[in-house]
Amino acid sequence: MTQQPVITTFGWVPEFARGLVRDMRPRWAFEEVGQPYAVDYIDIPFSKTPPHRAFQPFGQVPTYRDDEGEIFESGAIVLHIAARAGKLIPADTAGRMKAIQWLISALNTVEPRVMALLINDVFEADQSWSQDRRPTVLETLDSGLTDLAAALGDKTWLDGDIFTVGDLMMVSVLGGLRNTGVLDRHPGIAAYVQRGEARPAHRKAMADHLAALQATAA
Amino acid sequence: MTQQPVITTFGWVPEFARGLVRDMRPRWAFEEVGQPYAVDYIDIPFSKTPPHRAFQPFGQVPTYRDDEGEIFESGAIVLHIAARAGKLIPADTAGRMKAIQWLISALNTVEPRVMALLINDVFEADQSWSQDRRPTVLETLDSGLTDLAAALGDKTWLDGDIFTVGDLMMVSVLGGLRNTGVLDRHPGIAAYVQRGEARPAHRKAMADHLAALQATAA
Ligand SMILES: N[C@@H](CCC(=O)N[C@@H](CS)C(=O)NCC(=O)O)C(=O)O
Ligand SMILES: N[C@@H](CCC(=O)N[C@@H](CS)C(=O)NCC(=O)O)C(=O)O
Repeated sequence: MTQQPVITTFGWVPEFARGLVRDMRPRWAFEEVGQPYAVDYIDIPFSKTPPHRAFQPFGQVPTYRDDEGEIFESGAIVLHIAARAGKLIPADTAGRMKAIQWLISALNTVEPRVMALLINDVFEADQSWSQDRRPTVLETLDSGLTDLAAALGDKTWLDGDIFTVGDLMMVSVLGGLRNTGVLDRHPGIAAYVQRGEARPAHRKAMADHLAALQATAA
Repeated sequence: MTQQPVITTFGWVPEFARGLVRDMRPRWAFEEVGQPYAVDYIDIPFSKTPPHRAFQPFGQVPTYRDDEGEIFESGAIVLHIAARAGKLIPADTAGRMKAIQWLISALNTVEPRVMALLINDVFEADQSWSQDRRPTVLETLDSGLTDLAAALGDKTWLDGDIFTVGDLMMVSVLGGLRNTGVLDRHPGIAAYVQRGEARPAHRKAMADHLAALQATAA
């Protein structure tokens, strides 16, 4: 019997990070493609030790392994889960190119702008510059979201009617804005995120993600 | 006859950006796989207009098209050039997983830290917070580079002896630090970047990149 793929993530995180830890991305992908999986829970101190860094040199989560190989980077993991299942990536070359383009766009164009706001508001909140710098950070983010909204137009998903790995990653990245109020200014994007998060696979993944964290907190 | 792939990039950029514009990434990939290509040069104002945004919603470069499809995002373009040529990505699944992992790690873990420094030092240089914030930005970057150096160890490339799309993207991203002095503190990484940039394909791509920009400047 083939072993189930295993992901590694934190068994406990502070309140503000619940729902946002990046194991949500492979969890969601597994649910979309119908692939059972197992989870290894580690704690934050262990993530900084050599045994974990052997799998994830930056001392982060998630990591992934199956009987063919092991990787880190949530983006690479999601792409692998999709490719292995032959799902979430259109079969035609043009569609495949676009799906991967949007996955990378989420990771390399949109996420840096989302993270810049979260870093400013959470990790640098106590720094002298945080308030002064905020409008500059917001401007870059808002301008990216305006561009993204125009690209989405009134389509259901980024490439039309078919939900792809590109949408999975874009909705995951935009989910980081959940508690910031930013999406109130971008109703088209807010509705897109809501459509993504209303998918049964997302709901199941989120329920499992939160249940695991709550079990440890208790 | 099949048409050559075409990339779009800027025909002119300010001095500080020469050698760094992201058309370097597809150029380098084309040279590595031996794929001839054509370049459409556009100017910065045109990149913000609807005809360009139809291909690149964020009004940026590069874009790519061939007879099968069209995409933006330098990461997606490089991955497509490699996959189409059947080169720069190992044939075995485990090797393929790792090569893509490193490409995504360059784009989603390393580049945001590199860009944070460049944004602070170039685009936010005149802002009141730029000097005060710099040590915080540097600390995150240095810690990522220390982790990356440990992962590289004394291997030639990230996965050993074979140069992959992961190395191509990592060296490209790290090239952004060229004029910052940061790599002086990370000799293992500096040597890795030098090895990458010494490859004939990189030299050819850089020469073509700079020649095109100089032709327009003249
Ligand atoms: N680019 C990485 C980022 C991973 C990441 O930032 N993980 C967070 C949790 S969501 C983490 O491990 N943080 C702890 C730390 O950075 O020390 C990915 O997408 O997998
Ligand atoms: N994530 C994108 C970033 C593209 C990007 O930042 N392009 C720069 C040139 S290297 C650009 O077009 N800058 C002009 C602007 O952002 O207005 C990619 O890798 O293709």
